[in-house]
Amino acid sequence: MDWIPVDLERSARRIERDIETLAGPEYTRSEEAIRRYAYTPEYRNTLDYFIRELEDAGLECSEDPVGNLVARNRPAGERVFGIGSHCDSNRNGGKYDGTMGVAAAVEVCRLNRELGLDLPLQVISFLEEEGSGFGQMVLGSRIVAGRVTEEELMGFRAIDDGRPFFEHAKEAGYEPERWRECARILDDLVGWIELHIEQARVLEDTGKRLGIVDAIAGYVHADIAVRGRSDHAGATPMDLRSDAGLVMAECMLELERLAREAGRGTVGTVGEAELEPNLINAVPGRARFSLDIRGVDEEAFRGVARAIETFAREAAGRRGASAEYSERQSLPVTPLDERVVGALEEAARESGEPYLRMASGAAHDTMCVAERVPAAMVFVPCEGGVSHSPEERADPEDAALGAAVMLNAIRRLVTAG
Amino acid sequence: MDWIPVDLERSARRIERDIETLAGPEYTRSEEAIRRYAYTPEYRNTLDYFIRELEDAGLECSEDPVGNLVARNRPAGERVFGIGSHCDSNRNGGKYDGTMGVAAAVEVCRLNRELGLDLPLQVISFLEEEGSGFGQMVLGSRIVAGRVTEEELMGFRAIDDGRPFFEHAKEAGYEPERWRECARILDDLVGWIELHIEQARVLEDTGKRLGIVDAIAGYVHADIAVRGRSDHAGATPMDLRSDAGLVMAECMLELERLAREAGRGTVGTVGEAELEPNLINAVPGRARFSLDIRGVDEEAFRGVARAIETFAREAAGRRGASAEYSERQSLPVTPLDERVVGALEEAARESGEPYLRMASGAAHDTMCVAERVPAAMVFVPCEGGVSHSPEERADPEDAALGAAVMLNAIRRLVTAG
Repeated sequence: MDWIPVDLERSARRIERDIETLAGPEYTRSEEAIRRYAYTPEYRNTLDYFIRELEDAGLECSEDPVGNLVARNRPAGERVFGIGSHCDSNRNGGKYDGTMGVAAAVEVCRLNRELGLDLPLQVISFLEEEGSGFGQMVLGSRIVAGRVTEEELMGFRAIDDGRPFFEHAKEAGYEPERWRECARILDDLVGWIELHIEQARVLEDTGKRLGIVDAIAGYVHADIAVRGRSDHAGATPMDLRSDAGLVMAECMLELERLAREAGRGTVGTVGEAELEPNLINAVPGRARFSLDIRGVDEEAFRGVARAIETFAREAAGRRGASAEYSERQSLPVTPLDERVVGALEEAARESGEPYLRMASGAAHDTMCVAERVPAAMVFVPCEGGVSHSPEERADPEDAALGAAVMLNAIRRLVTAG
Repeated sequence: MDWIPVDLERSARRIERDIETLAGPEYTRSEEAIRRYAYTPEYRNTLDYFIRELEDAGLECSEDPVGNLVARNRPAGERVFGIGSHCDSNRNGGKYDGTMGVAAAVEVCRLNRELGLDLPLQVISFLEEEGSGFGQMVLGSRIVAGRVTEEELMGFRAIDDGRPFFEHAKEAGYEPERWRECARILDDLVGWIELHIEQARVLEDTGKRLGIVDAIAGYVHADIAVRGRSDHAGATPMDLRSDAGLVMAECMLELERLAREAGRGTVGTVGEAELEPNLINAVPGRARFSLDIRGVDEEAFRGVARAIETFAREAAGRRGASAEYSERQSLPVTPLDERVVGALEEAARESGEPYLRMASGAAHDTMCVAERVPAAMVFVPCEGGVSHSPEERADPEDAALGAAVMLNAIRRLVTAG
């Protein structure tokens, strides 16, 4: 099958316009960063922007009972190919994470119409991928995949005001008690592709413009709480302390050592840290820190999680303290679909641009979609690998290339299927 | 000179009554701990309690322009011997820190009258020793000693509401603009003794009931701010990170090593720690932590401060980050007066109870008094060395012994002088 040529410059301009518009003051709660999350006016404005663009491209839009946005160019029940991402952001986020993937999906729809291809498409923009509103990552797609229980959903509360998820969803005009029906938005999908910025430096360092993702890392999210003894910082000799902060420091460095030792792309991060009483003149009596451990080698990353738990207990014991490990969430590695990956590789090859087959270290909504639908992802480089930061930069021309590759791959898959 | 015998059991009962009364709900802002600080109703109630007790013991009470409480049994201008401490608490404090010293001073006054000694006495209860109201340690005695500038005073703000110190002082009925006159409360003093709980385990471990303090540790309070780069925790390989949290962890452990290596009672503590953005899935781009470094060997503890600053720069450099050291406050070692220390030692020896000559690791108001007035301190044990905690425990019988020793030492000093 021939490569359908695309005016990449025009696509890049349209994607750039989408991205820059959505970095404006109506679309972010912060002036210093992109900050938008579920059920805020800024998030609503963002959905409305995409709805207008999707309708212009000839799709019909709707929202599921919790607020996942769905747009189709075929009636319900007909088979369609799914594309999309999310358009919420990290609390201190950038313009490209998620949003560029939705913009690329919209661009695929525009091209589909302009080029008269009439491929059957469905765009999804998932709710609350970053967890900035309710502290729950990939929440919208987990609801769709049934990876939450009713009890869990009832327990989720807004970071800002502590009020329940259900209450916020209702106020925003949704019917969250019907959350089980969200699963239906995947019913008609014959495949799924999500474009996303890479959030690392592999593409940049290897000089590639696209990554074709064949697996998404699994992860363990956990906390370790250390209980030592709070003492007067001036009057307590070094030998008579049980400093919970120093146990934490040892664990932070040990996690780094363990992740490096495990290799195979395994990473480990302490992103959150708290001391109590957190006073300059008090030996910390308690410490709490988070663990984010990921990898595409299931045994390797789970081994790091087990090892740091053991280490924390021992390190605490050596200082007369105790340590308790508690898991927040864990997800297995997600292998992606060989046929969809293959079609993307073929299209990428035909584009003539340098690409790389690779794994994703970050979690994505596609993890939840892949359980039911043959899925893959396309990565585009971001400058210096910086993400989850207002310094995030990506090139709309790469996203335009990604959209063209997606369009070609989908045509191949849909026609063949 | 003979030892004046004292009914220690009666003194202990009175001191215990003072302590227990002041642990009641009118005297603390928290139910879980003692929490009282400058210009709160609970602090006012505490001053009023001591004023009643001091008036009962025949003293006249007044408050200086910022709220340091002064009580005398001689008219202004006559030479008096000073005793006292502070009666504010740590935010998460215990019943004994400071308050037991004021109670012991009140007991000295009671005994002075009951035993017909008529020693010339002045009690001071210093404002805001713990810094729980305005984040400034030994604030009342620093004002008295002129160890603050007008500009600094104007800049101090309440932790609770961010409003200026001056505004709070005025609302409480004081005239803080006349703060320079506070220096006068030391004008008539021929000597000064403060009783305080030890806040460490040296007395307990050596089986002593009293410590006669001949020096107070100096300290450096500082912060180190680390700037690395915040990245996605899942997608950024270990080798491509600049993790500010790991620089912090290395510094925490190095500070411990440096303090142990310096020896001579030098201690070093990281009591406060903060990461940014403080998210489970973000590599920390910034870290800020506090340093509390103390000792009675000036060169030793200042050397630790210099060494950790250098280490932080180097550790940050190794991770592609930068570290900035900024001092909050630093105080030199305070040697105490050999004559007052000697009189206390003699009285302690005559009491027949086990005592120890020692240094204070913690800072005390006496540091500020000692500049102008020959001064010393008396320590009493506290259980397990625990202080700055609701678990703080001390024995009123030890405080009664301390009051008796103070009374005898003062008689000796005043008569000899």
